[in-house]
Amino acid sequence: MLAVTILGNNSALPAFDRHPTAQVVTMEEHIFLVDCGEGTQMQMAKYKIRRSKINHIFISHLHGDHYFGLIGVLTSMGLLGRSQDMHIYAPSALKDIIDLQLKVADIQLPYALYFHPLEQEGVIVREAKFEVSCFHVYHRIECWGFRFREIRPFRRVNPEKARQYGVPSSFFDRLKWGESYMDKEGNLVENGWVTEPSIPAKSYAYAADTLFDERIIEKVKGVDLLYHETTYLKDLEEQAGKRYHSTTNQAATVALRAGVQRLLIGHFSSKYEKLQAFEQEAREVFPNTDLAVEGVTYRV
Amino acid sequence: MLAVTILGNNSALPAFDRHPTAQVVTMEEHIFLVDCGEGTQMQMAKYKIRRSKINHIFISHLHGDHYFGLIGVLTSMGLLGRSQDMHIYAPSALKDIIDLQLKVADIQLPYALYFHPLEQEGVIVREAKFEVSCFHVYHRIECWGFRFREIRPFRRVNPEKARQYGVPSSFFDRLKWGESYMDKEGNLVENGWVTEPSIPAKSYAYAADTLFDERIIEKVKGVDLLYHETTYLKDLEEQAGKRYHSTTNQAATVALRAGVQRLLIGHFSSKYEKLQAFEQEAREVFPNTDLAVEGVTYRV
Repeated sequence: MLAVTILGNNSALPAFDRHPTAQVVTMEEHIFLVDCGEGTQMQMAKYKIRRSKINHIFISHLHGDHYFGLIGVLTSMGLLGRSQDMHIYAPSALKDIIDLQLKVADIQLPYALYFHPLEQEGVIVREAKFEVSCFHVYHRIECWGFRFREIRPFRRVNPEKARQYGVPSSFFDRLKWGESYMDKEGNLVENGWVTEPSIPAKSYAYAADTLFDERIIEKVKGVDLLYHETTYLKDLEEQAGKRYHSTTNQAATVALRAGVQRLLIGHFSSKYEKLQAFEQEAREVFPNTDLAVEGVTYRV
Repeated sequence: MLAVTILGNNSALPAFDRHPTAQVVTMEEHIFLVDCGEGTQMQMAKYKIRRSKINHIFISHLHGDHYFGLIGVLTSMGLLGRSQDMHIYAPSALKDIIDLQLKVADIQLPYALYFHPLEQEGVIVREAKFEVSCFHVYHRIECWGFRFREIRPFRRVNPEKARQYGVPSSFFDRLKWGESYMDKEGNLVENGWVTEPSIPAKSYAYAADTLFDERIIEKVKGVDLLYHETTYLKDLEEQAGKRYHSTTNQAATVALRAGVQRLLIGHFSSKYEKLQAFEQEAREVFPNTDLAVEGVTYRV
């Protein structure tokens, strides 16, 4: 199971009861927090996000609407008695800010906080069942996108058939990953004879905040769900460019050319009270588009 | 007019839809922001606080529940086009945090931000119609209370009588401040003959977060309204002491012994969902006590 729950969908500052950027990505029993604007801890409480499942936090860049809520999340977790490790992946200067804020308050968190500065594109977390990588996006200051990928066997064993061919159950795990079996007499049991395709592993990519840039297409190629910022409607393409942001049209073009399954758009400018035009414009280019709405979970 | 509007009344972390500490003090055409926990800018929008009237911000101490919302308030004011000066009065390390957060975001605020580190007790702002002073309170880290005082003439001129006695209207301002008039022939017009007492100047004192400490009584003596923290009910006096906080009983004792008109209590621990007992306990000692309720304005 891979799903994204939106906690904040606005850009720059809170407006119209929309909050600055934050979302959680749920992958099996893990919850990842992606960006953390002011008020994220309140939004987590409102939408009943289980904080104890969050062990990894990813921060795209150090504009306040993407991280001002982080120190509150971290210190509140401490006050609530958290003991398990926490890992933060973010531009390096964030560590200085957190360290300074803890120091002036004379606070020792009751859990270990591991800070992983983002330095180059590639895999930043790899565990048995998932992998997260980061890639450059193109904003006024250093900014990163993240790609979440389930790791799961791509074949499912048919136990009846496997036993008919004499494959021992101790070999089933290797069957799931595509291996064929050879018995002691040298008889080959082809993988395809005893397995079927399993549910494909899902993937999600998060691209905020960024200019429209063709290099991103390659980085998000073929994901099941892409989140791409759309700060402005298409008539403000020039303004978007100047401010290192994207329009509906541009986000949908990335989705189309990257061959993704579905597009989620957010980071709406506070100049817009109503959002329908965002959906309409993006769907003209890429029909399978949805608005990122706070409190809604988008299953991949 | 002197009034206090509560934006956050909870301690440590948000809970039960209560927010971390923040309040605004309105004095004639001025609005002062006092402490600024996470979410203060959202609370200001919710309760329609006119941000353009805020030119002075007072931060008691650098525990996050009293200042994590400040950087969001400051940067949002910039995004909304503020141009007038802003003055912040706070422990000195706050400047380093703000400077670092602006630097990593590569932000130049479009208005001048003047930082005034709190160093010693006494007057910190004095303008024609008001005065603000700071005083020590006693918390785990450096912490300050604030006292707001209207400055207004204590006599009101009776213009008819003043003219009868031949006092020129150009002297009326001096009459308001208690002076007597002497004409060119050396005849004295006693102030009391031509003036009456005017509405007394009001005062408000804010004491958070602090231990019960008798030294505070002197500092808040005789104010019209005192805000004093009550993190705990009276049965947890020992715990309150260990954590450098106060109980209902202790706050009410300060109010009683300082001879204030009215007491406002807040900074409730998240262990309490219901707050009635706070009011009951404080009123046993000091009857004219009210709970600080978010969104409510307490007129002095």
